[in-house]
Amino acid sequence: MSEPLPFGTITILGPGLLGGSLAMAVRAAMPAAAIRLWARREATLQQALDMGIADAACTDPTEAVRGADLVVLATPIGAFRDLAEQIAPSLAPGAIVTDVGSVKNYVHRTTGAWLHEQGHTFIGSHPMAGSEKQGLEAAYPELFRGASIVLTNDHAAPEHTVDRLRQFWELLGGRCYLMESKHHDRTVARISHMPHVLAALCAYSATRGDVRMHDLQSLAATGFRDTTRVCSGSPSMWTDILWENDCAIREILHTCLDDLTELIRLLEIQDKETLHTWLEQARDNRETIIGGQ
Amino acid sequence: MSEPLPFGTITILGPGLLGGSLAMAVRAAMPAAAIRLWARREATLQQALDMGIADAACTDPTEAVRGADLVVLATPIGAFRDLAEQIAPSLAPGAIVTDVGSVKNYVHRTTGAWLHEQGHTFIGSHPMAGSEKQGLEAAYPELFRGASIVLTNDHAAPEHTVDRLRQFWELLGGRCYLMESKHHDRTVARISHMPHVLAALCAYSATRGDVRMHDLQSLAATGFRDTTRVCSGSPSMWTDILWENDCAIREILHTCLDDLTELIRLLEIQDKETLHTWLEQARDNRETIIGGQ
Repeated sequence: MSEPLPFGTITILGPGLLGGSLAMAVRAAMPAAAIRLWARREATLQQALDMGIADAACTDPTEAVRGADLVVLATPIGAFRDLAEQIAPSLAPGAIVTDVGSVKNYVHRTTGAWLHEQGHTFIGSHPMAGSEKQGLEAAYPELFRGASIVLTNDHAAPEHTVDRLRQFWELLGGRCYLMESKHHDRTVARISHMPHVLAALCAYSATRGDVRMHDLQSLAATGFRDTTRVCSGSPSMWTDILWENDCAIREILHTCLDDLTELIRLLEIQDKETLHTWLEQARDNRETIIGGQ
Repeated sequence: MSEPLPFGTITILGPGLLGGSLAMAVRAAMPAAAIRLWARREATLQQALDMGIADAACTDPTEAVRGADLVVLATPIGAFRDLAEQIAPSLAPGAIVTDVGSVKNYVHRTTGAWLHEQGHTFIGSHPMAGSEKQGLEAAYPELFRGASIVLTNDHAAPEHTVDRLRQFWELLGGRCYLMESKHHDRTVARISHMPHVLAALCAYSATRGDVRMHDLQSLAATGFRDTTRVCSGSPSMWTDILWENDCAIREILHTCLDDLTELIRLLEIQDKETLHTWLEQARDNRETIIGGQ
């Protein structure tokens, strides 16, 4: 191997869809790296060992992080702070702690700030990859290939440290962007969380009022299927996301509410020309956002 | 061929995505049927002739419908009434006129009622098939395979006449549902038009407020892409659809507005449990609607 590995021992806490895919991806891209896993349940760890994606697996987080130079929090965000308190005493000097949570300011304010106070290094990661499926069963090694990875360095870790983490994600096929956590949260509220809420709204409202389920079933086509796809995702996970990013989400949802109110008004006052402009603007926005990748 | 063809000569007025695909599908499924096309532009007709999907092609609608036992209106809905008035004197006795418009009550109230008064037979068709693409270039013969086709018989044509039209669509691979036009419009408002509006809303609102286009572009992933896919469709066509189905659409959009207001309230009063139930209900609705097909 021409370049040295950014990390020799990587501990992943919580091998679900993201954590499990990460273990698989590391195994494939950095075969020389040691992978250590922690999960609450023995059965999950046994499954990971059977899949050959872990060199060590333990139900004790302090043991799992021992000797690791990269520790990845991959549980639900709500469990980060407790885990951080458990692992902190066992962290190797110079170890970097990161996460894969989809909200970053909340993580920095709670877990990151605490680790930083204890003298540890925390840099946030948000791989913009996922699926409406969940769990180790749904994991696959190519999940991060081509994905955008946001890195948030609110506690100002040195540049060479951020670079190591960037190199790690790039070896897995990701494209890294460094952002402030607040800025990240406002952007993903628009590009990921609002789409989820509107997809859910579409499915939620569809059955309300005087309409027969049988007719909805008969006539549902690809438009309904695609527009609502993401709302098949775990309600628990999404409740957490909406919770943890609630300021940025409420801001954009209030904008949505205003924009929807305006659209209904255009229909009511029969302003066909402005309605057309509105739909054109929507289409153009989509082309610009998607096409600019 | 064991069964006689439901129609021997079929005229399609407007060979765009739907009309062009229909000509291709008829050619493939009923090679013995004669296909006559009308379009406003010579170039479109020449293209259709070159593709081998028309036996005759003319820019005069009265000539196009001569001898046809099925006439399909496949232009934008706004052009139906004028076309009907032009072709009525040339319609063969017993000819059935249908359409492929995605709104049905408006079509029956305007075009259907007028043809019926003149002693002609009009039965509405809405093939729940389409694409965000448009025009003869985007047409393909399998468009109707597996698609739901709603038939609306508001002017009470005899059952055997409806059966002929049903047989026609079934030969092209469609599954037919007979419905009242008002009932159809309320159902598609929920299953097709509201998804379009919410997809457009998602793309429209995404860029509002203090956010950088470059960041939206960098972080857009499959969630945004899928949720907004349908709003790539033609703003002109969708302005017409929202216009022509405006009562049913305003009804369901007011419901959406209420439901979104309630969701924002749940975030504001921090009622995590009800928020979870709301997201679960959305997911379950989607599974029931999609899974029930």
